Amino acid sequence: MAQALAAGKCLNFWLLLPTIILPRIPMPLPFPVLSATDAAALIQNGQTVSFSGFTPAGAAKAIPQALAARAKLEHEAGRPFQIGVVTGASTGQALDGELALAGAIAWRTPYQSNKHLRAAINAGQTRFFDMHLSTLPQQVRYGFLGKFDWAVIEASDVTADGKIVPTTSVGASPTFCHVAERVLIEWNRFHPTALRGLHDIYEPLDPPNRLPIPLNDCHAKIGTPYIQVDPAKIVAIVETHFPDDVAAFNPSDPTTDQIGNNVADFLAAELRANRIPPGFLPIQSGVGNIANAVLAAVGRHPDIPPFSMFSEVIQDSVVDLIRSGKCIFATGTSLTVSPPVLKEIYENLDFYKPRICLRPQEITNHPELVRRLGIITINTALEVDLSGNVNSTHVMGRDMMNGIGGSGDFTRNGYISIFTCPSRAKGGKISTIVPQVSHTDHNEHSVQVVVTENGVADLRCKTPHERARLIVDHCAHADFREALHQYFDRVTGGQTPATLAAAYAMHEHFLKTGSMHGVDWTAAGL
Amino acid sequence: MAQALAAGKCLNFWLLLPTIILPRIPMPLPFPVLSATDAAALIQNGQTVSFSGFTPAGAAKAIPQALAARAKLEHEAGRPFQIGVVTGASTGQALDGELALAGAIAWRTPYQSNKHLRAAINAGQTRFFDMHLSTLPQQVRYGFLGKFDWAVIEASDVTADGKIVPTTSVGASPTFCHVAERVLIEWNRFHPTALRGLHDIYEPLDPPNRLPIPLNDCHAKIGTPYIQVDPAKIVAIVETHFPDDVAAFNPSDPTTDQIGNNVADFLAAELRANRIPPGFLPIQSGVGNIANAVLAAVGRHPDIPPFSMFSEVIQDSVVDLIRSGKCIFATGTSLTVSPPVLKEIYENLDFYKPRICLRPQEITNHPELVRRLGIITINTALEVDLSGNVNSTHVMGRDMMNGIGGSGDFTRNGYISIFTCPSRAKGGKISTIVPQVSHTDHNEHSVQVVVTENGVADLRCKTPHERARLIVDHCAHADFREALHQYFDRVTGGQTPATLAAAYAMHEHFLKTGSMHGVDWTAAGL
Repeated sequence: MAQALAAGKCLNFWLLLPTIILPRIPMPLPFPVLSATDAAALIQNGQTVSFSGFTPAGAAKAIPQALAARAKLEHEAGRPFQIGVVTGASTGQALDGELALAGAIAWRTPYQSNKHLRAAINAGQTRFFDMHLSTLPQQVRYGFLGKFDWAVIEASDVTADGKIVPTTSVGASPTFCHVAERVLIEWNRFHPTALRGLHDIYEPLDPPNRLPIPLNDCHAKIGTPYIQVDPAKIVAIVETHFPDDVAAFNPSDPTTDQIGNNVADFLAAELRANRIPPGFLPIQSGVGNIANAVLAAVGRHPDIPPFSMFSEVIQDSVVDLIRSGKCIFATGTSLTVSPPVLKEIYENLDFYKPRICLRPQEITNHPELVRRLGIITINTALEVDLSGNVNSTHVMGRDMMNGIGGSGDFTRNGYISIFTCPSRAKGGKISTIVPQVSHTDHNEHSVQVVVTENGVADLRCKTPHERARLIVDHCAHADFREALHQYFDRVTGGQTPATLAAAYAMHEHFLKTGSMHGVDWTAAGL
Repeated sequence: MAQALAAGKCLNFWLLLPTIILPRIPMPLPFPVLSATDAAALIQNGQTVSFSGFTPAGAAKAIPQALAARAKLEHEAGRPFQIGVVTGASTGQALDGELALAGAIAWRTPYQSNKHLRAAINAGQTRFFDMHLSTLPQQVRYGFLGKFDWAVIEASDVTADGKIVPTTSVGASPTFCHVAERVLIEWNRFHPTALRGLHDIYEPLDPPNRLPIPLNDCHAKIGTPYIQVDPAKIVAIVETHFPDDVAAFNPSDPTTDQIGNNVADFLAAELRANRIPPGFLPIQSGVGNIANAVLAAVGRHPDIPPFSMFSEVIQDSVVDLIRSGKCIFATGTSLTVSPPVLKEIYENLDFYKPRICLRPQEITNHPELVRRLGIITINTALEVDLSGNVNSTHVMGRDMMNGIGGSGDFTRNGYISIFTCPSRAKGGKISTIVPQVSHTDHNEHSVQVVVTENGVADLRCKTPHERARLIVDHCAHADFREALHQYFDRVTGGQTPATLAAAYAMHEHFLKTGSMHGVDWTAAGL
């Protein structure tokens, strides 16, 4: 191995020349080429390993799988093997899933959405700390997360002088490459080298030397099309051919369609009232089924002009809007699209490349930019309470769902912040509108509009008492409205119509009976 | 009155010349001069009136008092008289106090701290909506708060072409002058016209035209030393001589001193660990007794080099640090100092003016700047829970104390965010460390360090289970530690050691018995 490393350092420009002239023909690589297993063998128990990936898109896959296999062998041999895992956000089965199943993750940040990892976290087997995604890179650089031993980065192209072109996400990879002592690259041949130019890599300086981020509109480019890393840090390359494991597009249903229509109608009314400028403003949209339906509805609304996206994740629905001309330009930190949509993009790269830009999550989610550009933010809530506080992360206040992700970065700084959810969950047994959220991720000061399939509660300039009435009457499901009214109607004083004794009575009733229906407020202490 | 207005519009530069040459000698004013009573008579029931003021400093005082008197007369005559009151933040007795006592405030935003107004809010007599202070000006411009009929601005100088030099605060006055249909000026002769140059007025454009705020260090000036307003909007000037009603400096006590020492020691250790750059970083500090003690302790710590302040409110303790050379430069939106300290500043304006800058609250609290400059934020909590969520606003989840103020602007975007509080309140009957805060203003994702007189809990990169242990063992008062341990020790699973049934048992016990001591966890459902 030491020899291979030494050889890697001796390779020079002339060996790389064939890469430049004939990029798609196998050529000598400028760095040692290892198998995933050999690369994984370099990583030691207890180390901190950062991986590319923001959603399954662009996540390192081969080395994590090999690490999981190695962890299993080590554990079978009675030896400890666990690492700290840091990524841009969630990843897919090949990274979080396999490593969690192998019991190989000692701690994890800043976000996750894998069922095996979630189970390990909620069982207390994996330490998880949940972070605002925009703050991860700077906190890594500030040293708050300690030493980073490795960056494992998926690339669509690499040069001898350490230029790494990412694949379908950027995430926090520039910072990981910057701070990690050593870098491993997964050169994933599934992605064309023609992706070069899709990314815009800009990493701010740290205080006291930080300067304004010179981005004044969604489509400006301010950085380089590659991540620059000191080539001496690149230990090896692993060649792969491994598509992102992005789940197929979830079709909308009448509930998500109605949520989408309600959001679109609200935005069109704001435009008519001149509270949104005539040219409209960029949209940020969360991830998932509701987000797809909302974007589709906004896209087909006749009164909403073509707009830009300034978001974290570019989903299938955004690509549809780009194709139709309704979305002029989309900025994201990941291109998380289903296999057929990615195929369509790659077959029409000349069309899509000038219309899509992938940036570091520190840029897509940056408070400075979200506020400057005036982003309309649309995110999904798990539950919303009568004051407009939103729970995005915890089930019944205790179990982690995924994490706060970028929702806080956008909500707090948006031009106008919207949260969507269906009014009921678990087949109607749970009301997503509750007296008090069991965990507060976004508080009443930052949540401006709540939308369910039933309607819209515009909370701007409303007192908590007024918000309670609006949210229940406009957003709650009819089945729960009376119970919710009973909770706050009799409270006349105070800034907030809260009765602590009964604040979680609906939650407790669910925990005891499996349903929020039939709560007894008097017994609950109201 | 109509005549006076017409006369005002005819005044020209030559009439103003004596103001420029002989500023302290009475001279013809370039706008109609009215009594406060006559000016107040222009304001109609139901109108929205914005006033200068951020804390009692720089608040309009004469017209609000006259309005309060008028409201009383109207109410005695059986006629309605209430207005919407918008300011930079809190104000003093002359504005919030008198108007609240007169029942003249229909609604109020974004912050308050007056006991009479607080009582009216919590009695449901005054509508109050609590806003992040940095967002107020832009939301006013976006039209989210409706039409602004009046801006009533305290000035230390005015020119014929509509240049208004504020007094001891800037707050949101530039935006109020910008959006209000008509402007009334209280020219307060208590303040010298030589204040010109102390202020730096910059109001950003709105999306989609907003540009980077070109401020890269604390002491840069980026705007004008005055608020420019269309002189045609200036309806009248009221001459006053009215000091700010700032309460005298509250001396520190052993508890606040120890909190201060703990913060200073923590920051010095961060500096030694290279997690704060060697030149240190600017400090933001909340308002009040603890904040004063913390700043004094940071100022006298031998390992902490001279630093800048980038804060909302410049209090007495900051002026002490400027005098001693430990604070190099202080940016704030208000100079809220006790009368003797203001006297000292005014008598030594040549020394202080190059070391103090008052800016709009939109700038002092701007996420873009707080994050760029790498501000160390230090704010005060009412209560803190085991996950690190902070309540800054509500007493027992229901009654408003003051409001969130700027704490969210700073905490969310700071380089490192610190919350301080004494471990007990109400003579030891209340633990400020509770299982779950009764209202969440700052959540676990944004709160990094908690400090009481007992010690420091560094929550960075900790799971909620670990945070619970740190907060209880390092910060809670010894009298409550065992009870708090009982709450979370038996919870083994879940991301967060929350048991909803018992989350507010300590609060409920206080509401029933007047003390948080002696909670029965089993009866509470644990």
